[in-house]
Amino acid sequence: MIETPYLLFLGDAPDQLAAKVAQGIKDWRPEFALGQYRMEGCKADMGLADMNLATAKAAGAKTLVIGVANRGGVISPAWKKVLVQALEEGFDLASGLHNLLRDEPDLVAVAAACGRQLHDVRVPSVQYPIANGIKRTGKRCLAVGTDCSVGKMYTALCMEREMRERGMKASFRATGQTGILITGDGVPLDAVIADFMAGSVEYLTPDNDADHWDLIEGQGSLFHVSYSGVTMALIHGGQPDALILCHEPTRAHMRGLSGYKLPSLEAVRDMALALAKVANPACQVVGVSVNTQHMPEAEALAYLAQVEADMGLPATDPFRFGAATLVDALDAI
Amino acid sequence: MIETPYLLFLGDAPDQLAAKVAQGIKDWRPEFALGQYRMEGCKADMGLADMNLATAKAAGAKTLVIGVANRGGVISPAWKKVLVQALEEGFDLASGLHNLLRDEPDLVAVAAACGRQLHDVRVPSVQYPIANGIKRTGKRCLAVGTDCSVGKMYTALCMEREMRERGMKASFRATGQTGILITGDGVPLDAVIADFMAGSVEYLTPDNDADHWDLIEGQGSLFHVSYSGVTMALIHGGQPDALILCHEPTRAHMRGLSGYKLPSLEAVRDMALALAKVANPACQVVGVSVNTQHMPEAEALAYLAQVEADMGLPATDPFRFGAATLVDALDAI
Repeated sequence: MIETPYLLFLGDAPDQLAAKVAQGIKDWRPEFALGQYRMEGCKADMGLADMNLATAKAAGAKTLVIGVANRGGVISPAWKKVLVQALEEGFDLASGLHNLLRDEPDLVAVAAACGRQLHDVRVPSVQYPIANGIKRTGKRCLAVGTDCSVGKMYTALCMEREMRERGMKASFRATGQTGILITGDGVPLDAVIADFMAGSVEYLTPDNDADHWDLIEGQGSLFHVSYSGVTMALIHGGQPDALILCHEPTRAHMRGLSGYKLPSLEAVRDMALALAKVANPACQVVGVSVNTQHMPEAEALAYLAQVEADMGLPATDPFRFGAATLVDALDAI
Repeated sequence: MIETPYLLFLGDAPDQLAAKVAQGIKDWRPEFALGQYRMEGCKADMGLADMNLATAKAAGAKTLVIGVANRGGVISPAWKKVLVQALEEGFDLASGLHNLLRDEPDLVAVAAACGRQLHDVRVPSVQYPIANGIKRTGKRCLAVGTDCSVGKMYTALCMEREMRERGMKASFRATGQTGILITGDGVPLDAVIADFMAGSVEYLTPDNDADHWDLIEGQGSLFHVSYSGVTMALIHGGQPDALILCHEPTRAHMRGLSGYKLPSLEAVRDMALALAKVANPACQVVGVSVNTQHMPEAEALAYLAQVEADMGLPATDPFRFGAATLVDALDAI
């Protein structure tokens, strides 16, 4: 659990895209985004108050979150100076970078001396159990994709926001690094040891109120040969009551696998549902989320109408057109 | 890669069953099983020559393999003395125990001083790649089960032996601790990090001669919610050309999951084949391997005949009645 609120470290980000972790936090947990720390030459701007460490500390910030992806996989000396100072001034640090904070001896030494925490969200901090498959109380929705990186995290976050606005009980459950930094908690599923994957998902989505929904961030795809085992663990560990199919229609082949075509929505529906019913015989496919960012609006709307007609399910781009129809479908279960 | 041949350490095994790793090596790789080392009070006997360290060394043994499961998860002081002496006399050590050799400071120190290796086959020793899904040369057969521990390893080993007797090119590919100790090589798949599972299976079963068969040891089951992600990675990383369905007919529920019934052979066939075709559209289900150890012979034979009739596939207990019909079916592909 990462302490909030955050000061978002944008460093010397060369452009807005490099700060997409900070953007995610600002978009989805604005209440955690107290301010931004920008170094000389920073080209990213979240539209938040620019703060130095002392100002942010006085305003109540607990954790400096590295909201920028660095190049070349090293924490630069220029960053290091700020990170050390932040620890000295009483901030914890949180990072999703490949190069771990804990592998930097100076950060480890200063954190120990100052009694501060280093959160490397790429690696699990918990000893997860083996999944036991026992039915849990509360409800769960899982986003399953035709491919990796088709918008499963944004779908779950859009639905959570819509549900909270309606006064429904809903919790986004992060299973990836960006999601964990956004919410301050979660399971870095791609870094979990094979035997404990499904157990880590059970741990992430425990017993809850009967009318509470976990919105579980999906990973990979049953049809992506590199990562399908991770998807499988989400389906069986998550015991979903509802599945949302996620798709990006303009992709020519599976991400990173040039020889593999995307499966149809029908194929994903049938395979995911059959597997989900092993853990939860009552599971239903309730809707389709389409990432239409590469389509003009008229084309996107026509595509969604076609999907609705073909699948007999509500279809929307929840980030572009809202998640209302998906939440209606969940609420009807 | 563990150096062979082995001296099999039976320690103070309380009974024959406690030495099942040694039994597996002796049954399946007798050429690696040079002799056995039994301590005072050992109740297990592999029928091998009893050797002390000096005798075994002189006879050419390279590695002392811990062929016995200990109780309570600790390496006893009585064992420790023998293990230290073995390192000093020039043996490597290999173990599949939960408590790792590398976590014992005295063993680590002596191994370093003597230039010997400690092989803990429970943990990966390789940095596996992410799976790339590219079609490999040679052929692969994967055992998939209705449940865990139904005989997938023995099925693959029986088939390998039959194929080698026929002069076919065949390699058992171990994916679990016992299999790795039997063959001296393999991937401890349940201990691999999620993102690299399928890649580790690709690494284990590389390009080979067009008429060479990898016989991949299966793990878990698509229908076992604790471990299904591992099974999925085997199906997609292994790119099998052939699947053998494995079953144990007398089990009341899934292993460790009292609320879960076993799936039918038909359900496993359909699900596994559909998923396997993602990575290899030519994949076929070629036979059924039934573990009949809990059935009298007449009942076992009747059951196998019924499975053959129902499934339209050869069905046998390869350990009890031979693997000929399964190998015939593979050879016909």
